[in-house]
Amino acid sequence: MAAEKSTIATAQKPFFVGIDVGGTNIKFGLVDDNGQTLAYHTIRTEQDKGAEDACSRMGQVVRKLVEEAGVKMSDVARAGLATPGPMDIAAGMLLRPGNLPDWWDFPIRDRASHHTGLPVAFANDANAAAYGEFWCGAGAQYHSLVLLTLGTGIGGGIIVGDTLIEGEHSCGSECGHILVNPADDAPIDSLGKRGSLESYANASALVDRALEALGSSTVTSLAKRRATGEEITPRVIAEEAERGDEVARQCIMETGYWLAIGIVSFIHTIDPDAVLLGGAMTFGGNERPVGREFLQTIRDVVRPRLLEPLRETVRIEFASLGGDAGYIGAAGLARLEHRKKR
Amino acid sequence: MAAEKSTIATAQKPFFVGIDVGGTNIKFGLVDDNGQTLAYHTIRTEQDKGAEDACSRMGQVVRKLVEEAGVKMSDVARAGLATPGPMDIAAGMLLRPGNLPDWWDFPIRDRASHHTGLPVAFANDANAAAYGEFWCGAGAQYHSLVLLTLGTGIGGGIIVGDTLIEGEHSCGSECGHILVNPADDAPIDSLGKRGSLESYANASALVDRALEALGSSTVTSLAKRRATGEEITPRVIAEEAERGDEVARQCIMETGYWLAIGIVSFIHTIDPDAVLLGGAMTFGGNERPVGREFLQTIRDVVRPRLLEPLRETVRIEFASLGGDAGYIGAAGLARLEHRKKR
Repeated sequence: MAAEKSTIATAQKPFFVGIDVGGTNIKFGLVDDNGQTLAYHTIRTEQDKGAEDACSRMGQVVRKLVEEAGVKMSDVARAGLATPGPMDIAAGMLLRPGNLPDWWDFPIRDRASHHTGLPVAFANDANAAAYGEFWCGAGAQYHSLVLLTLGTGIGGGIIVGDTLIEGEHSCGSECGHILVNPADDAPIDSLGKRGSLESYANASALVDRALEALGSSTVTSLAKRRATGEEITPRVIAEEAERGDEVARQCIMETGYWLAIGIVSFIHTIDPDAVLLGGAMTFGGNERPVGREFLQTIRDVVRPRLLEPLRETVRIEFASLGGDAGYIGAAGLARLEHRKKR
Repeated sequence: MAAEKSTIATAQKPFFVGIDVGGTNIKFGLVDDNGQTLAYHTIRTEQDKGAEDACSRMGQVVRKLVEEAGVKMSDVARAGLATPGPMDIAAGMLLRPGNLPDWWDFPIRDRASHHTGLPVAFANDANAAAYGEFWCGAGAQYHSLVLLTLGTGIGGGIIVGDTLIEGEHSCGSECGHILVNPADDAPIDSLGKRGSLESYANASALVDRALEALGSSTVTSLAKRRATGEEITPRVIAEEAERGDEVARQCIMETGYWLAIGIVSFIHTIDPDAVLLGGAMTFGGNERPVGREFLQTIRDVVRPRLLEPLRETVRIEFASLGGDAGYIGAAGLARLEHRKKR
């Protein structure tokens, strides 16, 4: 869902375009200087058509957005482009993102700039989402934050003041890849790393945990859904947890436990104002009982493990921009670059 | 040992005083704008006399240093003061450092400023050491680094560009307190935290590991030294490791293993140019065989656990300023504050 659109009458110049590239969709927003979305559009990624084709379609959508919003192209100062890694941020290159196999080793920043006619700020997608939350989401009141995006993978973004921790090799804030358990029998994540935060707390870790907990049971409501041949997904597990399935509930809370172990390390490394949790696997967030219990579990595991000055001060909250965080943050980073360079 | 003194003839104005407060000694250096030490002095902390007394003695030493170096007090722009935490950096307050029990809740920045007659930049000691290495030590060629100081505790300092990660509650870069093993039977550190990096890799963890490995043995050379009633310290363990005691060697390398597990997490969080290892427990560093093997063990454990773009790019090295890093870094932070504010 796109953020509520602001009317052009109250929009603050200059404007920025945010583009958030995912494996399935590309989201676009025309965003004003206050972070308000003036126009929004989404297209299929169609990654198999290649990156040049996508950049060409980006140009078409940008012109369409500008027209739709009734603004002048000359009032659009810059675009921000967020993509999955691995990437070379300084060079503007996509390297070899696993979900975009036909786009490897592509100079996406400059090609997007060519097709949109705008200077382009280039960012990692999770870093951009963190900047979006920092600029005008759940982190808008903070000086520093760590965002964890929970889903198929676990992404991260860390912001300290004006500094986005992008790293020297475009791998800063790769929060899913810290180690939470060095044991030889720890699970392995999608990149073959044993005992990483992602290996314990991404979507497939939750599903694996639930299937293992079910064993050969046919009794619980989750086991009954499995018996019908239905695929067990995080959403199914959350639904059954809310209906009182204790196995489902415990599997979600165990996911929260492992996230909490990782969060303790992020807090002692960064000492941020807040840790925010975003992404698809937040179980409905504050809107749902299981989301609220998930958050409370994390807080309860984190707090006693923190140094005393941090225990009651560092906030742990859900992010607030949902799927809009990426394009809003990309627009925000375009704005930051514009302000630094003008 | 103080850094080699530069002669006043080549010294670059303005000058800065760096003060590094430890539980036993306070180190002072008069440092020029290039990071060269013009004069050095050390006094006993005498913490039981209280913090006001120490600040008064700081004033005396600063005047003595300036006189000794033959410079004008008016060419000394600012002092930097590094102390152990916990502290409130913004307020200039010492809170309740464990090794300075008679100095609790003391406005040390302003009192040191009063007695030295200089504006004072206030910093955590490990953060200052990191800045020292960054300014003119092993990190001088880098844009970002993580320093771990290994000893009784494990301190840390993280620098990204111009940003020192001091945290919102003066607990940034508390690298010893990340979790490396959440197991219920993990050891407990000095602050009662189970499974922290410090609990596995500080000096007492090494000694405990050696004593446990010895068991009731009287055969190994380390066991023989214990049998004479000699206290087993990291230094003793390192000596015996160099003489070929396999138990001692393995205990040191196991310490390296746990440091490496923590370093993997720091690298994926920050993606720095380098991780530097400093402090008393580096086993002679590059000068000694056991130091070199310790470093190699760490590199060998870290590398395969890193994301591919980081594996051959992030450096893991010993720090180079030894016990001077703290006062040099404090002077460097004074210089940074001076340059920002002038």
